[in-house]
Amino acid sequence: MGLLGGSVWLLCVSTALAASSLRQPRHVEAPRSASPSGSLWPLPRVLHISAAQLQLAPKRFQIVHGSGSSAGPRCSLLQDAFRRYYEYIFGYSKWQNHDDKSLANTELTALQVIITAEESDCDKYPDISSDEAYQLYVGEPVAVLKAGKVWGALRGLETFSQLVYEDDYGSFFINASDITDSPRFAHRGILIDTSRHFLPLKSILTNLDAMAFNKFNVLHWHIVDDQSFPYQSVTFPELSAEGAYSYNHIYTPTDVRLVIEYARLRGIRVLPEFDTPGHTRSWGEGQKDILTPCYNGEHPSGSYGPVNPVLNSTYNFMAKLFKEISTVFPDDYIHLGGDEVDFTCWKSNPDVKEFVKKQGIWYSYAKLESYYIEKMLDIVSSINKKAIVWQEVFDNGAELPSDSIVEVWMGNLYQEELRQVTKEGLSAILAAPWYLDYISYGQDWKKYYNVEPLSFLGCESQKKLVIGGEACLWGEFVDATNLIPRLWPRASAIGERLWSSKNVTDLEDAYTRLVEHRCRMLRRGIAAQPLYVGFCRHEVRDP
Amino acid sequence: MGLLGGSVWLLCVSTALAASSLRQPRHVEAPRSASPSGSLWPLPRVLHISAAQLQLAPKRFQIVHGSGSSAGPRCSLLQDAFRRYYEYIFGYSKWQNHDDKSLANTELTALQVIITAEESDCDKYPDISSDEAYQLYVGEPVAVLKAGKVWGALRGLETFSQLVYEDDYGSFFINASDITDSPRFAHRGILIDTSRHFLPLKSILTNLDAMAFNKFNVLHWHIVDDQSFPYQSVTFPELSAEGAYSYNHIYTPTDVRLVIEYARLRGIRVLPEFDTPGHTRSWGEGQKDILTPCYNGEHPSGSYGPVNPVLNSTYNFMAKLFKEISTVFPDDYIHLGGDEVDFTCWKSNPDVKEFVKKQGIWYSYAKLESYYIEKMLDIVSSINKKAIVWQEVFDNGAELPSDSIVEVWMGNLYQEELRQVTKEGLSAILAAPWYLDYISYGQDWKKYYNVEPLSFLGCESQKKLVIGGEACLWGEFVDATNLIPRLWPRASAIGERLWSSKNVTDLEDAYTRLVEHRCRMLRRGIAAQPLYVGFCRHEVRDP
Repeated sequence: MGLLGGSVWLLCVSTALAASSLRQPRHVEAPRSASPSGSLWPLPRVLHISAAQLQLAPKRFQIVHGSGSSAGPRCSLLQDAFRRYYEYIFGYSKWQNHDDKSLANTELTALQVIITAEESDCDKYPDISSDEAYQLYVGEPVAVLKAGKVWGALRGLETFSQLVYEDDYGSFFINASDITDSPRFAHRGILIDTSRHFLPLKSILTNLDAMAFNKFNVLHWHIVDDQSFPYQSVTFPELSAEGAYSYNHIYTPTDVRLVIEYARLRGIRVLPEFDTPGHTRSWGEGQKDILTPCYNGEHPSGSYGPVNPVLNSTYNFMAKLFKEISTVFPDDYIHLGGDEVDFTCWKSNPDVKEFVKKQGIWYSYAKLESYYIEKMLDIVSSINKKAIVWQEVFDNGAELPSDSIVEVWMGNLYQEELRQVTKEGLSAILAAPWYLDYISYGQDWKKYYNVEPLSFLGCESQKKLVIGGEACLWGEFVDATNLIPRLWPRASAIGERLWSSKNVTDLEDAYTRLVEHRCRMLRRGIAAQPLYVGFCRHEVRDP
Repeated sequence: MGLLGGSVWLLCVSTALAASSLRQPRHVEAPRSASPSGSLWPLPRVLHISAAQLQLAPKRFQIVHGSGSSAGPRCSLLQDAFRRYYEYIFGYSKWQNHDDKSLANTELTALQVIITAEESDCDKYPDISSDEAYQLYVGEPVAVLKAGKVWGALRGLETFSQLVYEDDYGSFFINASDITDSPRFAHRGILIDTSRHFLPLKSILTNLDAMAFNKFNVLHWHIVDDQSFPYQSVTFPELSAEGAYSYNHIYTPTDVRLVIEYARLRGIRVLPEFDTPGHTRSWGEGQKDILTPCYNGEHPSGSYGPVNPVLNSTYNFMAKLFKEISTVFPDDYIHLGGDEVDFTCWKSNPDVKEFVKKQGIWYSYAKLESYYIEKMLDIVSSINKKAIVWQEVFDNGAELPSDSIVEVWMGNLYQEELRQVTKEGLSAILAAPWYLDYISYGQDWKKYYNVEPLSFLGCESQKKLVIGGEACLWGEFVDATNLIPRLWPRASAIGERLWSSKNVTDLEDAYTRLVEHRCRMLRRGIAAQPLYVGFCRHEVRDP
């Protein structure tokens, strides 16, 4: 709905934030490292760690399906996760085959994973309402991880793996613990940009690993843009044949499926963005007439502007392309972009001018953009998908379906934008303070960590409409050479902000845990850059 | 000599810079890429490239010793270089075994390398006065590379390899060319810091490769500092045993020898820095009494300050340690540091206070630092080495031997500092505008490129005392995860500034060449980050 439209605003009274159920006290009984919470990242909602140590014997320890679980050996998502986390826990020790005689009096022999809901979601894709809650009880002789769905089990496995530590003698221990956890925000995304620079499949998969380690659950794949069109369309193969940087810089249908499945196995949604009508120069390479010819006075200048909004052929093309996209990408949402549309070219084109006049939108090119986007929204609805758009679509007054999501990205007034979007009853995702492509000297992770997404003027019902946020690593200066160290552990700060309770704001404690978490990422093959001076016991494996 | 000392200043008259012999016109006849100079980086002094293409057949082409060369097959430095550059030229083609039928009418069958001086320097170490000049003539049927010494031959091989290009069919070509080249500055360094973070040997060697690709010739190894002491001393093994981050974070004598030899084979000096009297916290871990005990009023506070300058034991220790350093590191120079000495602790210590009083230096702790440094300079002289120091040593008025070099690193007044240092007749190295650890968004390489090291007030004889510069990548936020992409190609900008003629300042031309040079570095295994949007035909080999 438009800002000035007559639609009903959410009526609510601004109140001081009530103490939410998320603000439960953290009971931490047994500090065993510099942080009372060990190396946990992000911090669970409720956490009890006791002083009692249990030893794990790599040869005997097992991760298994617990009795009563609705998932079993046929759930390959969990089977894969069990194997993966066993490897993360024990795989980096040089001494894993040493004599497993117990040093502690007590041994933890297994982690039993129990999916409590009738439907485990094992073969499904995660979505915005996926249940990621879990409970983890670690005690002798077995630990029990309970989750309604596999998504919570994945998060709990990550937490369990973070609780295990290796002593100086190569023995593995875990402290008896009791954890109840669930995310504060449902949408916790990382934006990657594969148009400004192509990212090899391996980089994307490695990044998905890192996302799982930080409990992110959305890969926002800004897959095409002005610079290149690496998405290989089956319906319109010319788009990548002409618009990709080269034949080697293309994501085939197989590649895309692989990314989606690799993400699914880690509880991560893949949200595709096909940004229009701006940011589309590369589309014009392989699709005739899709872009607006710009004019220099009365003659075409030879250059092209945004998508041509006045031709029926445009919408026919878009309907077919987005139909394909809706089948390739299983997510309920498609990101339609809609940002940074430059009206100069539209204003120069006589057909566009004539159209604007005829439509009676009185030379408002913002309204022309809304006209275009509303057509796109219709296409998206017709293929049973929902839309996410950048904030300008909202700002320009497009009529947005109530299930749309507005992504807030612009500068310093993002709190006011959040207020306005949610006042219209629309859901919002916050990206503005988390543009990780803007680098600076020093520990900038603190700046990202200090952001409180709900610190805008609005009532509780408005706050609830902020469903999450995204760390955006735009690709102008990023490719496979620097993607991972530039993103991690800076994005980890945002991961904790979006997962953990609002009152988790202690920078010193966060630093201590994040240092260890970063070393853990290194051990697991993520070349996360250092936070500050120091070292990891296991440095990067292949510098 | 001190700033206020009565020593004789270099007398000279400031004049407008005369057109130097370096400012020869570049004749470029045959542009074959976006830059008339192809992908050459840094740009040679005199360059003629003709339109005539010669083809190279990987199966037949050879790099050989030319007749009359004073070096032959027994010169393993050149033998290794021949093999290495053959691999750089042909090694990345997928089609190198394809049929070598000539497409051009003319073929280049060999590069003959001729060392013209009687003494080739083949088994020597490079030094500050090493001759790096070379002449390269590429014509049918053979190319000839002439250099006085092997150092020039190494630079010429790099240039030759940059001239060869692969066409779309996998055939290799080079244009007939005539190049006369030599560096503008003799000291072209990269500073790495292995104390704030340990850098694995492999990272250091990879960086040496990249340095050779950019014609850098000094690895300034800031090997120890407050945070850790990774240098394993044979004389004082406790220094690293106690002062290194861990047993795995140590450079053994074998490691150090390997770095030095790997560097030598690429014409790169290894300049060790053992920074004292500040930046020495880690020294205190393994060496009793080396640091000054700080006092809180009348009692030791338990913390320690800079090296203790009042004990004879300090200088006995330093004499032994530096004696060892002088044998381990073959370079003529040792960097003594001398930067950022905090006097607070010295001022608190009663023994130091008493000493200052007795010495009659009237509570000038800057003079105490000079006292200390002069003792260190005596030690260095006694082991037949020369000293490089950070600028504070000069600023504080220490009596510096005339063969010392002052490294200028502080902030925005570096031009004035250069003026003052050279006015005293001392040589200077410029680092101030090239602190690459300070990162920022965008194409900051342009800022580094635009620096003109001699743009300070001073006469020609002063300008000649500026012997070069260094790109410094301090290690607070850098380790093996991000060293290479953070350093390259940003340091390349400084590489060209220090090698090429003063009038090579065209940013657009530089951008075009640097984009290709960066792709070449990627092909050769250097994960240099992108300059801006775009792609390389061969992306990073193992992201």
